[in-house]
Amino acid sequence: MFNFDYYNPTHVLFGNSRINDIGKHIPQNARVLVTYGGGSAKKFGTLDEVKTALGHRYVAEFSGIEPNPHLDTLMKAVALVKEHNIDFLLAVGGGSVVDGTKFIAAASEWDGDIWDMWSKRLPIQSALPMGCVLTLPATGSETNGTAVVTNTQLGAKMGYNSPLLFPLFAVLDPTKSYTLPKRQVSNGVVDAFVHVIEQYLTYPVYNKVQDRFAEGLLLTLIEEGPKALTSTDNYDVCASVMWSATLALNGLIGVGVPQDWATHRIGHQLTALYNLDHAQTLAILLPSLLHVQKETKRIKLLQYAERVWDISGGSDVEKINLAITKTRDFFEDMGVKSRLSAYGISEDAIDKVISNLKRFNMIPLGEHQDIDELKLRKILSLSY
Amino acid sequence: MFNFDYYNPTHVLFGNSRINDIGKHIPQNARVLVTYGGGSAKKFGTLDEVKTALGHRYVAEFSGIEPNPHLDTLMKAVALVKEHNIDFLLAVGGGSVVDGTKFIAAASEWDGDIWDMWSKRLPIQSALPMGCVLTLPATGSETNGTAVVTNTQLGAKMGYNSPLLFPLFAVLDPTKSYTLPKRQVSNGVVDAFVHVIEQYLTYPVYNKVQDRFAEGLLLTLIEEGPKALTSTDNYDVCASVMWSATLALNGLIGVGVPQDWATHRIGHQLTALYNLDHAQTLAILLPSLLHVQKETKRIKLLQYAERVWDISGGSDVEKINLAITKTRDFFEDMGVKSRLSAYGISEDAIDKVISNLKRFNMIPLGEHQDIDELKLRKILSLSY
Repeated sequence: MFNFDYYNPTHVLFGNSRINDIGKHIPQNARVLVTYGGGSAKKFGTLDEVKTALGHRYVAEFSGIEPNPHLDTLMKAVALVKEHNIDFLLAVGGGSVVDGTKFIAAASEWDGDIWDMWSKRLPIQSALPMGCVLTLPATGSETNGTAVVTNTQLGAKMGYNSPLLFPLFAVLDPTKSYTLPKRQVSNGVVDAFVHVIEQYLTYPVYNKVQDRFAEGLLLTLIEEGPKALTSTDNYDVCASVMWSATLALNGLIGVGVPQDWATHRIGHQLTALYNLDHAQTLAILLPSLLHVQKETKRIKLLQYAERVWDISGGSDVEKINLAITKTRDFFEDMGVKSRLSAYGISEDAIDKVISNLKRFNMIPLGEHQDIDELKLRKILSLSY
Repeated sequence: MFNFDYYNPTHVLFGNSRINDIGKHIPQNARVLVTYGGGSAKKFGTLDEVKTALGHRYVAEFSGIEPNPHLDTLMKAVALVKEHNIDFLLAVGGGSVVDGTKFIAAASEWDGDIWDMWSKRLPIQSALPMGCVLTLPATGSETNGTAVVTNTQLGAKMGYNSPLLFPLFAVLDPTKSYTLPKRQVSNGVVDAFVHVIEQYLTYPVYNKVQDRFAEGLLLTLIEEGPKALTSTDNYDVCASVMWSATLALNGLIGVGVPQDWATHRIGHQLTALYNLDHAQTLAILLPSLLHVQKETKRIKLLQYAERVWDISGGSDVEKINLAITKTRDFFEDMGVKSRLSAYGISEDAIDKVISNLKRFNMIPLGEHQDIDELKLRKILSLSY
């Protein structure tokens, strides 16, 4: 097991009607900016619940935080913070709204060039306090200190991390996911699943607890994910998916183990180039990457085959191949197509993706930093 | 899944030589009281490492915190805090030292009758900040806000809990457990195992993630616990046991599920009456309790049999009986005897334990509050 730090101070408020309790975690005299995305927070009444729970506090609103939130949009919120003397941020939405609000929290307290701070990962000394009300289980952003923001002018999507960006609290109310479009449910389950895989399917370092926890999340997502597509208002199913997605990226399963993240890095370029949903890129790339990395990931792939997919017969190679096939089938069963060709993307994507990764100095990739251009070409070719 | 709150702000510093990093988590001008138990923290050099890491800070010492720490002892430390204007506490030891130091942290800031506060669970408004360096994996106290203190004059052992009593940081260095006496290793594994069981073996509430995590910890303790007795300086084995014991009681596996704790409550009386080690009482009582509660715990016992002990053949009753037998065998393999008779305790203990539990108004017990005097008598009779 590697040495590690684990720190996660976010107070989780899990369950039905927990929005009612946010007042206990926000100063009485706070001046609150409520941030959200499109109309669904308003349409389904979540925004009204939030405002009721905020009581007599001063409340301003900022709407329109888009998926893969844009610097330009978020800077408008930073201006609003200053204009209204805001001292508390409350994100209501999915991972993009939470990520965007973390950016606002950091940027509002930064003197100097904000994109410089973000893109060069200069450490912030302070940030506005924030909380969040999650409506879409997927990214895990609700209980971590990480955020990703897109600078459309530069065509850059940059992540940032600070212990000052953990939300003070996160409301996880499974009923808030009842009204999600099916595509978002599908994407959320696939995203959470691949988050776990990127921290699990590497090489063994005798971290038995982290392995068991990761396998527990994968098994739960495999059992509950498909149910979430048909039983859209089943509380227990939605609760299982929501809690799994949070634990997939709250830091716990990743401590003391090697991590991969190549699937995510390559996937970001597919999103940038072809506007595919983030989860679609993961479903396309992960099975191919596992095939290409079959040797370096052999021991963990066998463990994955046996413990997660209950595969006991056959040779090692057969077990591994079957586990990869079952992984792809799971994505397809979740309604996320797992071939580039299914999205009508032609084979010139291979060169374009590699060229983008080169431009951002992202090659080599993987837990051994052994995914070079040749391997990338294989991974992408196998993705058709 | 039940609604729940989860909050755990302790910063974990896990791994070899992490004591070197404590300086980053303690103010430069802090006046530190280092608390410890017997001589082992001194003898094996941990105390010297701690003092080196504290650098130029003012350091006072308080030694002699005993197992099941006594009010009288701890009040001497409270006096020392005032005398030396201490503003930071650093516990070096196992669960008793950490628990005792939490008491000192709370008592040092309390105006009024301290035992009144503790025993009546009056909420504290402040506590001294504290950190800890764990030398004995077992209780989980290093990353929770709970402490148990014994008032020998009143013959009372009382627990207390406050979010203000989470250690700011916890150093978990597996090499610190290399020098432990075998009995403490055995006890620690059994204690951690039963902590998990008390939060797992109740009745199902569709909390699939918590179940998987609990099973993961049980499987790890079953695999690694016996190795820890023979490979006393195997880093990976010691790391697995230490991390499992911490996660067994950091609050995570207990959220959103029913909890039992009857085995602990009854066990405390056996310790009070016969001075048995805490883990010995758990090893004695748990198998009998599971037998008596076979019906109310049926569904989870079957899941436990199948997932933890890999029992697939036989009738439900046979599976459950075999799982209970394997649980008892595990305790015995860990070197902890699991029968009252093995400790030379005669059958009049049954009446004495029940009489104590009555005196403290602790009956009925269990997740359904259905362990009455009759069931208690059965549990204790089966423990011979």
